[in-house]
Amino acid sequence: MQLEIFTTGGTIDKIYFDAKSTFEVGEPQILEVLREANLSIDYRVTPLLRKDSLEMTDEDRGLVRQAVEQSTASQIVITHGTDTMIATAKALADLPGKAIVLTGAMQPARFRFTDAVFNIACAMMAAQTLPAGVYIAMNGRIFNPGSVRKNVEMNRFEDV
Amino acid sequence: MQLEIFTTGGTIDKIYFDAKSTFEVGEPQILEVLREANLSIDYRVTPLLRKDSLEMTDEDRGLVRQAVEQSTASQIVITHGTDTMIATAKALADLPGKAIVLTGAMQPARFRFTDAVFNIACAMMAAQTLPAGVYIAMNGRIFNPGSVRKNVEMNRFEDV
Amino acid sequence: MQLEIFTTGGTIDKIYFDAKSTFEVGEPQILEVLREANLSIDYRVTPLLRKDSLEMTDEDRGLVRQAVEQSTASQIVITHGTDTMIATAKALADLPGKAIVLTGAMQPARFRFTDAVFNIACAMMAAQTLPAGVYIAMNGRIFNPGSVRKNVEMNRFEDV
Amino acid sequence: MQLEIFTTGGTIDKIYFDAKSTFEVGEPQILEVLREANLSIDYRVTPLLRKDSLEMTDEDRGLVRQAVEQSTASQIVITHGTDTMIATAKALADLPGKAIVLTGAMQPARFRFTDAVFNIACAMMAAQTLPAGVYIAMNGRIFNPGSVRKNVEMNRFEDV
Repeated sequence: MQLEIFTTGGTIDKIYFDAKSTFEVGEPQILEVLREANLSIDYRVTPLLRKDSLEMTDEDRGLVRQAVEQSTASQIVITHGTDTMIATAKALADLPGKAIVLTGAMQPARFRFTDAVFNIACAMMAAQTLPAGVYIAMNGRIFNPGSVRKNVEMNRFEDV
Repeated sequence: MQLEIFTTGGTIDKIYFDAKSTFEVGEPQILEVLREANLSIDYRVTPLLRKDSLEMTDEDRGLVRQAVEQSTASQIVITHGTDTMIATAKALADLPGKAIVLTGAMQPARFRFTDAVFNIACAMMAAQTLPAGVYIAMNGRIFNPGSVRKNVEMNRFEDV
Repeated sequence: MQLEIFTTGGTIDKIYFDAKSTFEVGEPQILEVLREANLSIDYRVTPLLRKDSLEMTDEDRGLVRQAVEQSTASQIVITHGTDTMIATAKALADLPGKAIVLTGAMQPARFRFTDAVFNIACAMMAAQTLPAGVYIAMNGRIFNPGSVRKNVEMNRFEDV
Repeated sequence: MQLEIFTTGGTIDKIYFDAKSTFEVGEPQILEVLREANLSIDYRVTPLLRKDSLEMTDEDRGLVRQAVEQSTASQIVITHGTDTMIATAKALADLPGKAIVLTGAMQPARFRFTDAVFNIACAMMAAQTLPAGVYIAMNGRIFNPGSVRKNVEMNRFEDV
């Protein structure tokens, strides 16, 4: 397998439960996004967690790191909530031989207008073209986890 | 004016605020739905409230009743949260000379898959074809407010 | 069965075949529209034809009339191309005991922005609320087949 | 400017004209796609042609080559019909100092289900991460124009 995708939850996977009048992190939405994209690359989707990223613990990050480490793929994409995506990216530093790209969305993939499809595509392409290392793909570009922040007011990632 | 639409909030108008990681009742979504439908009827949209229907008070229902009463239109559509739509419908009983149809959605209008467009269309057509009275248009049919309930498990309205 | 839907083709069902670089009338799209609407009425969809309505012949109209006549439902919806929808409506005159509503779309149901969902909902509600007769449901209202025309420039139906 | 996007038409930009019952290549759809993606890169969209790619002439390809050559950007994305995308890519060979990525879609960007968003994102990311050269971004991966073909039956690009 060439490219492995791990899902951890986040806004990208939020769906609406009318019975409870709440939105919750649901099934990974990336499967539907990729079906529509009609890909000709060899990939696999492995769900790891289903959490709002504000609730991610060090233990969760350990689990993600272990999954990436054990994957036979050298190209890794991780879908993740945007609030702590940078922290998880840093926790994946120093894993040799893999291009690891984290991405997510500001608007859920289930919405009619969403940045999810664009961001997933960017991450999958970056994982195929960049050298080994850890990257964040948001807002159409690649960021270095060591020098990026989420600008909450502007609703986007930017260089520090 | 032939048909007046009052909006009160509810799931149909829920949007996502990434900065707060919450979904909230936002601007009336019906304007965009109607633009796309390319209507040739004479209508007006008047926002009244922006509430989850579980938070609607008797005072709110009094305000809705007053707005309907004072409208010069004889065909009235009201978008409303589904949880207390029936209670508001009952509070509008005995207003003479108007066909009043309440509708809403189980999935927000902003979603890629939503019942909002279908329900709004049903309500607007019912307001044009039914005699004066108060009705609920959900799940493709017309219900009498006195003999309907929301089946939360099945996620739909049904006859009592 | 309460409501029967016959499909005949038209813009509403147009899909894109990349291999031939052409758009053609495809499978009835109404099934997907209705699945999403989560209906609680008793209906059936019966495909009759798959034609651009400019190609509908008198024989085709005879076939539609026969199907409507033989249906056990008293509420009938027919999806149809808009160019000759009025001619087919006239060919269905004088069928007793049935509310027959024709509808279609100016933009295919497969498009992200389409009038198909709104129009189908209007037709299904009209079939349930109007007395026996033949009607056209387009642009959010009901037209009498004897006094309507398609305004090609304005892209909508209007009274003659 | 960092990244320049030239549009030439193709399926990605096909829209429906009900008045003529035809689909034609319309305004560049990429503007709407990029608005939704909320990008934080510095880009510009320049429409060059509005053609089905089967109608592209050598003169058209000369015009595209000239535009790329004169662009001040070193990252170039070109949206193009899929049928002759490979020929245009070859006509852009040997332009020094620019990463040039061609992309398109098998289903128009206006469709509810389309590969356009995914493909555009892949092309824009590839233009940012790949060294100078000419590439095709389709079906989630990068192809070399010298060793790729469109498999019409399978509806995708593949290595020769």
